Amino acid sequence: MKIVVAIDSFKGSATSAELNDAVKAGILSAFPAANVTTFEIADGGEGTISALQHGIGGELIAVETVDLLERPIEASYLLADQLAVIEAAEVVGIDKITPSAETIQQATTRGLAALFIDAKNRGATEIMLSLGGTGTSDGGLGLLQGLGGSFEHLPVLKNVKITGLADVTNVYAGEAGYAKFFGKQKGGTTEILAQQDQEAQKVAAQVKVQYGIDLQTIAGTGAAGGLGGAIAMLGGIIEAGFPKIAALLGIEEEVKNADLVITGEGRMDFQTANGKVPYGMAKIAEKYHVPTLAFCGALGDDLGEMNEVLLASYSIQRSALSLAEAMEKERTLKNIQALASNVMKTRYK
Amino acid sequence: MKIVVAIDSFKGSATSAELNDAVKAGILSAFPAANVTTFEIADGGEGTISALQHGIGGELIAVETVDLLERPIEASYLLADQLAVIEAAEVVGIDKITPSAETIQQATTRGLAALFIDAKNRGATEIMLSLGGTGTSDGGLGLLQGLGGSFEHLPVLKNVKITGLADVTNVYAGEAGYAKFFGKQKGGTTEILAQQDQEAQKVAAQVKVQYGIDLQTIAGTGAAGGLGGAIAMLGGIIEAGFPKIAALLGIEEEVKNADLVITGEGRMDFQTANGKVPYGMAKIAEKYHVPTLAFCGALGDDLGEMNEVLLASYSIQRSALSLAEAMEKERTLKNIQALASNVMKTRYK
Repeated sequence: MKIVVAIDSFKGSATSAELNDAVKAGILSAFPAANVTTFEIADGGEGTISALQHGIGGELIAVETVDLLERPIEASYLLADQLAVIEAAEVVGIDKITPSAETIQQATTRGLAALFIDAKNRGATEIMLSLGGTGTSDGGLGLLQGLGGSFEHLPVLKNVKITGLADVTNVYAGEAGYAKFFGKQKGGTTEILAQQDQEAQKVAAQVKVQYGIDLQTIAGTGAAGGLGGAIAMLGGIIEAGFPKIAALLGIEEEVKNADLVITGEGRMDFQTANGKVPYGMAKIAEKYHVPTLAFCGALGDDLGEMNEVLLASYSIQRSALSLAEAMEKERTLKNIQALASNVMKTRYK
Repeated sequence: MKIVVAIDSFKGSATSAELNDAVKAGILSAFPAANVTTFEIADGGEGTISALQHGIGGELIAVETVDLLERPIEASYLLADQLAVIEAAEVVGIDKITPSAETIQQATTRGLAALFIDAKNRGATEIMLSLGGTGTSDGGLGLLQGLGGSFEHLPVLKNVKITGLADVTNVYAGEAGYAKFFGKQKGGTTEILAQQDQEAQKVAAQVKVQYGIDLQTIAGTGAAGGLGGAIAMLGGIIEAGFPKIAALLGIEEEVKNADLVITGEGRMDFQTANGKVPYGMAKIAEKYHVPTLAFCGALGDDLGEMNEVLLASYSIQRSALSLAEAMEKERTLKNIQALASNVMKTRYK
């Protein structure tokens, strides 16, 4: 019996690796001879570097730079052979600030440039940038500036393949653009966001005319406050995070021969099908007709497309309790271990 | 595929029948051709009359009497052919009072006598008395008095078989007796309970000498504030409630040929193995090597012996939430239906 376990972190409660280990222990308590393969996993957002380092090795490189409000910080990226993996949120994460009308106007992606440059200097031929969790809404212009250019004079990172990892498909400007669609949660007022969108429209028009790059037709250019647009302007591509990470980790090879896949995330709902870990795992498993179960901290009422790709879904909760209690790491790990044991016995005994 | 579903009520949230129907709907949503048999069930406590009426028919007979504080009430019992089923809590339930040092001294089981007499007058040849949930601690002497006697001059219900249904095995007097063991939760102080136990010792000694009935060696005489003792004094027997009810409902016949049994209760923990519904169902199923699953509102950390008799156990909760939210009937039924569907798919797809 071969089981593949790849559970996303339960944010604020337990890491992907901890959850995988607890599920594995639960499986083995019911079936000591089971063959359990675990993957530390992320969807291109938080935890991407950790998941990839665990899977493909490499070392964390610390770089002196500035954060989104241009305060000096040290930020790390992963360098594995000639692949550099940068988490945008490490430098320009919204968790570093209290979003306001001021921060959304000041916040810049300029600090990311130092990591790009360092990676290139160390011989990286591919840079992957995870686009989740940013507090910026600068259209990615800060990054271009940090690299010594602008949207009128695009900088070039010669011989470096750049890939942005995004779990949204928004384009650069307009109602679905970075300003109007995502700006509110970053502190923008209607007025500020209208101004930012005007700027985005201008940039998109200029880049289209001058370079033939149409930011309005490339999915993901509106991700991360337009940082996705900067990736496109640098000649890079934007991809869904999960499949890229899954490919690097070799997940498909293991799922192919599995009897069962167990995945999960902190809260699963109708948004999970937008490229989150459980959706990604289930889609890989579906290709090989392997059933997938999801173990979650919370299950929404509406699981949307997840209902079609999962065999079944379970919450780890065992009774009524507060959110703070539910998020205690010890309880989470104990509960998911017990659930794994119960589900395995239900399925195979 | 044949499934037997028998879930105890989730007290304060949903009845046995409602929970069974929701589980059945969940099973059929996953396997429309499944053969699902449901049993409205109880363990001899709350819900006993309802469960039995649903299974064996009969009519509810309303009787004018008094409650445990001797306030006039109308109370009903079930009469099915010549079998009468009386729920002690219908007349002397602890839910009718606010337990205090006063109530434990005043509360009497006298009002139950009217139901016994009515049943006998209507031709009942067997009376079953469920002993759960009482607020009395009178050693059952009120009932004897109501039947026109006392522990020194025991009344006789001629040609009537009397059975008490209890889920505890406590004897009449002493540390495990009705006063000292159960009196605290009924409002008794140490002093009051010591007095009550002295009285219990006196009664036990007298009844043993005079009638050869040893209340100190008969399991269950200490149930329901000593009401179990009155049953013994009336020449009746005390049995575990669940097996008796299961036999009347013909559960064993159905379980025998089932592929799976699904049971459950509001909160399952180490006390469940003391004759509660999930334990009873699992023990019947075990006889025929049929696996049993439990669906519960809450799962305790320690399930005690239940771990050995169940294949697996699940909570219906889907996220952190308050107890009040968890007990909303609509949510409970929706959640248990979804769980049933998920578990069925996990086991059979």
